[in-house]
Amino acid sequence: MLYVVGMGAGSRDGMTAAAEQAIINSDLIVGYTKYVELLREIFPDKEYSSTGMRRERERVERALKAAESRTVSLVCSGDSQLYGMAGLAFELSESYPGAEIEIVPGVTAAFSGGAVLGSPLTSDLAVISLSDLLTPAEKIRKRLECAADCDMVIVLYNPSSKSRSDYLRRACDIVLGYRSGDTVCGYVRNIGRDGQESRVLTLSELRETPVDMFTTVYIGNSDTKIIGGKMVTPRGYRDV
Amino acid sequence: MLYVVGMGAGSRDGMTAAAEQAIINSDLIVGYTKYVELLREIFPDKEYSSTGMRRERERVERALKAAESRTVSLVCSGDSQLYGMAGLAFELSESYPGAEIEIVPGVTAAFSGGAVLGSPLTSDLAVISLSDLLTPAEKIRKRLECAADCDMVIVLYNPSSKSRSDYLRRACDIVLGYRSGDTVCGYVRNIGRDGQESRVLTLSELRETPVDMFTTVYIGNSDTKIIGGKMVTPRGYRDV
Repeated sequence: MLYVVGMGAGSRDGMTAAAEQAIINSDLIVGYTKYVELLREIFPDKEYSSTGMRRERERVERALKAAESRTVSLVCSGDSQLYGMAGLAFELSESYPGAEIEIVPGVTAAFSGGAVLGSPLTSDLAVISLSDLLTPAEKIRKRLECAADCDMVIVLYNPSSKSRSDYLRRACDIVLGYRSGDTVCGYVRNIGRDGQESRVLTLSELRETPVDMFTTVYIGNSDTKIIGGKMVTPRGYRDV
Repeated sequence: MLYVVGMGAGSRDGMTAAAEQAIINSDLIVGYTKYVELLREIFPDKEYSSTGMRRERERVERALKAAESRTVSLVCSGDSQLYGMAGLAFELSESYPGAEIEIVPGVTAAFSGGAVLGSPLTSDLAVISLSDLLTPAEKIRKRLECAADCDMVIVLYNPSSKSRSDYLRRACDIVLGYRSGDTVCGYVRNIGRDGQESRVLTLSELRETPVDMFTTVYIGNSDTKIIGGKMVTPRGYRDV
């Protein structure tokens, strides 16, 4: 049995009861080194297997193989689908017919970070990863243009890395083709972890702000505003 | 103190520890009648206050007023931001300066329903509500066009109601302007509750399928496929 578990932002607080139960019921927990360390603090007595970044295929195959005879949790930060390993588990599952798969959802960074900023995600939204490791850069550019053009709130994952330090600036330039520099934006770094930082700022300011890969970025729609220092997108109930 | 709490799909399993703790710590729990009934089964000894559909403003004001002197949880299904009451709580908070607000995120239907279908939400996505009560129909149409044009997975909330029985069909027609009728789609009804139903089908079939307001709908991107009966969007790890 393989549970592909979204563990939320990383603390026990942010895990669902179903995620916690899957881990407790598992004989083996497989994940990226950093998340396995977080879990080891919460559940010290379990058996763990970890692999480094970009070793996703190896990690998923190890979990599927073990799941043919044992109960295994393959853990992902945030949600287990979104930029997580649930999709790959199904893709590789045909080679491991003895492993039944159950997906356990979690709170993805968009929502846990949004709650820190206020309520940026009250209405229609687009979630876009700026990493071009797995998606062609041209497709990412098109998605940014489309999302900006139709006035959806935009959440950016993987906004930067050592080799992509100017990607957020380039994304802001695309959005600035459709939205004002005064558009309310925000970002949260290390959501729910030690050293959590957040800031509400304008799109023009965001363009000049260096962020790292542990940051989630929010670009408001034309209605998004600041209320008491919080980033708030109205849904429109006031007019109902 | 006001906690605006996303309670997930409705069972205790889907709630985070932080959501459960907020409810346990509250003197009063305010929410829509249906969700208050669900919570009463889990936490029978709490004080509750419920209001019917479309009474959001009254509900939020009641919660804010009480939160000036007591600890209150304002509960929302799924996440507390997305089509929930977190935004309205901030908007109305200026009249209730004694009420401090904390947003407690939850697993929104997109992810809890996606986990039932498989892993439709592995990659970039757009979430769009088809309800034109709070968003102009023209803006919804534009968002559907943009999301379809840039090949994002699309999740539709509020796909239908008594007065909008043909909205899903019209949305499918818009997407069919950009995507093949064979595009893999899915829907889940009553996610995580009694009577949960789900189906994986093509976009052409979805167009002909009546759904109700308790249904969440998924339209795959050009890579989405069916694996062992599940709706799976690859992220591309296989090629890394």
